[in-house]
Amino acid sequence: MTKSLRLGLAGLGTVGTGVLDALQKHGRALSLRTGRPVELVAITARNADKPRGAHDLSRLQWVNDAVRLAAMPDIDVFIELIGGEGDPARSAVETALKSGKHVVTANKALLAHHGAALARLADEKSVGLYFEAAVAGGIPIVKAMRESLAGNGVKRVTGILNGTCNYILTKMTSEGRDFAEVLQEAQKLGYAEADPSFDVGGHDTAHKLAILTSLAFGTEPSLESVYIEGIENITREDIRNAHDLGYKIKLLGVAVQTEDGIEQRVHPTLVKKGSPMAEVDGVFNAVAVNADFTGDLMLEGRGAGAHPTAASVLSDIGDIAQGNRLPAFGIPAAQLKPYRRAALKAHEGGYYVALELFDRPGSVAGIANRLAEQKISIESIVQRAPQSEQATAPFILITHDTLESSMRKALENIEADGHVAKTPRMIRIERI
Amino acid sequence: MTKSLRLGLAGLGTVGTGVLDALQKHGRALSLRTGRPVELVAITARNADKPRGAHDLSRLQWVNDAVRLAAMPDIDVFIELIGGEGDPARSAVETALKSGKHVVTANKALLAHHGAALARLADEKSVGLYFEAAVAGGIPIVKAMRESLAGNGVKRVTGILNGTCNYILTKMTSEGRDFAEVLQEAQKLGYAEADPSFDVGGHDTAHKLAILTSLAFGTEPSLESVYIEGIENITREDIRNAHDLGYKIKLLGVAVQTEDGIEQRVHPTLVKKGSPMAEVDGVFNAVAVNADFTGDLMLEGRGAGAHPTAASVLSDIGDIAQGNRLPAFGIPAAQLKPYRRAALKAHEGGYYVALELFDRPGSVAGIANRLAEQKISIESIVQRAPQSEQATAPFILITHDTLESSMRKALENIEADGHVAKTPRMIRIERI
Repeated sequence: MTKSLRLGLAGLGTVGTGVLDALQKHGRALSLRTGRPVELVAITARNADKPRGAHDLSRLQWVNDAVRLAAMPDIDVFIELIGGEGDPARSAVETALKSGKHVVTANKALLAHHGAALARLADEKSVGLYFEAAVAGGIPIVKAMRESLAGNGVKRVTGILNGTCNYILTKMTSEGRDFAEVLQEAQKLGYAEADPSFDVGGHDTAHKLAILTSLAFGTEPSLESVYIEGIENITREDIRNAHDLGYKIKLLGVAVQTEDGIEQRVHPTLVKKGSPMAEVDGVFNAVAVNADFTGDLMLEGRGAGAHPTAASVLSDIGDIAQGNRLPAFGIPAAQLKPYRRAALKAHEGGYYVALELFDRPGSVAGIANRLAEQKISIESIVQRAPQSEQATAPFILITHDTLESSMRKALENIEADGHVAKTPRMIRIERI
Repeated sequence: MTKSLRLGLAGLGTVGTGVLDALQKHGRALSLRTGRPVELVAITARNADKPRGAHDLSRLQWVNDAVRLAAMPDIDVFIELIGGEGDPARSAVETALKSGKHVVTANKALLAHHGAALARLADEKSVGLYFEAAVAGGIPIVKAMRESLAGNGVKRVTGILNGTCNYILTKMTSEGRDFAEVLQEAQKLGYAEADPSFDVGGHDTAHKLAILTSLAFGTEPSLESVYIEGIENITREDIRNAHDLGYKIKLLGVAVQTEDGIEQRVHPTLVKKGSPMAEVDGVFNAVAVNADFTGDLMLEGRGAGAHPTAASVLSDIGDIAQGNRLPAFGIPAAQLKPYRRAALKAHEGGYYVALELFDRPGSVAGIANRLAEQKISIESIVQRAPQSEQATAPFILITHDTLESSMRKALENIEADGHVAKTPRMIRIERI
């Protein structure tokens, strides 16, 4: 009989409890598949006395400290479901790797901040660092990029990576409601945190994007190079205007290899209705990859939740039980290239521009001239009649592809000219 | 330096040439990722003298027989891109496995017909049998089901698995044209074979479905248990009617675990507009899996073509170079369960029914009574006015979920009653 693979689990929150469920229901099947018994032997959690549903944990070793669990000689795999870039998660993962244990983690912050260093440590000790659960929950995008796309040059990765934002934008679209109102409802339903800023501000998406970028281009994760804009300022009028012009608004994470380096950006984005990304609604996540041989590939599924995320943890455990080994980011950590950032002002794309225009002669001509000056050409315009007694009216336009720097310059000039009552706003368009 | 992984390639058609391209462009990167040099050493093809584009094959060993190549001691991996369930593909793959070589194949027919026996042979010799390229071209669905979903119980697999059919149905939909006309155009464009029956008759889809079923449920592949209907009889009127009722028509392969066994069916299907499967258009393929922990997962991408398929072959080569091992169908071949077929007449679902009704009193009542008799309830009806001087008119209805056996009985009775001028036609509805 093969020696069993002994697991130590740190963290019994939503995902941790999901892993208990998954091991109980499918642990034996996993052992059968991999040819090696898989056994949970030790556990640590903030509150040892909290009831854990149907799970009898009395036969497991309870350890009161994650770092101590990580160092225990009687486990082979350390499963880190504590979260957060700092301690105890970080030191526990480091301890596990240093003591020659494989690590399975769902911790996007830890990987986005310290991924390269942890990958080097794993390589030195010839152990695995697995994190399918850290990006897009139940969607097996890490394995797809690390293994399935190994015979490709990746050109672009695009993702809807945060279920909270996608839920809010979907509701705003389908029900014509305001951001604040839908956010409040999402909080009541448990789809948004009490402090929603990490999600709606785009930071969660940025963490996941930094990891995907590393897998895509073989570079060290570089969270600090991600340009980040959240969805807080998207209005229901933006969504209606986008709709009228044939688009939906999604919070996307985009990483593109350009001649000047890698562009990583997270921002609300107009995507054409009917395109695959536009039809990913509600709490669903999706990742689209464009690669030179595979072409366009998209994976869509549940980006969060106890059970989908637990299934990703089990997939990693299965790889370890099987004896499969791959460097954390697909290539040996020593070969990860330093990240070279492309300046966003060199970005080229289409833009949605929302202006609040004074309703008087010369306004439209003034706008048009400022755009022409920057060689920006207009694809379509929606001008709405001013509401009664208002001196201004919404003036919406979609541009053809242009440089971000030109767009910004034109909008600065338009504002300085005094034709608009508010600072112009722009939303990038992604043609995917 | 690690010993290189030596490849022997049999077949230099579209996919074989794509593999040459992929190895040339990304072979070194693959070696870097896996830590083991990958090297093509020997080759066989029907015509050794045919020019192979930019590829200089003069330094490779040319072998004039696939079985001889498969037996050569100087290769570690036999790549079978010949195709067909019979010889030389079958005996070459058997020979390779028997002589302890790993096999990478894109041959769906071979696996659908002889998959279980080949998997046993691979297990006996402790070598890998890999076939990512055999199902849905560039979409990494085999790895996803074999590895990523290992901690799940799969409940249902649904796929658009044939690009030719999807292209034809998409064109019929967007341009309102007839099957025969679009097929002819697809043949001219190289999207359909001169003899299209394998594709449009649903057989290609059935082969791929049989393989996915095996991966999903741990059963021996059972191609002969697949119920198959092609798209030849779909009319542009069906497509227009479906559109009016909120549906699109797709050729789906569906495998479901039921209480009575496994249901495998390939047939034209109505899917709700806006559902992910409905929006997969043109030559794209997609596979949706519903599993108890991961929930709904869908992968969409290019289902054919030299380069996407070659990328899947390289992914398999990467797994072998890495030393990753998994049984062909996810569990050891000896543990594959015998296939138990659920009778299609026990299938429950909605139906689209197209009748050519005589335009006279009592016809509609006659139809309604025959349906009521079988406890079939109607969700919606479209009745079109008869064209001038016609004695009959199209009468279309959508039913709520009902038993296939009841549906068939009702349609038999309706025909026997003489209310219709033609044999009634029905198309199943899939609520995904």
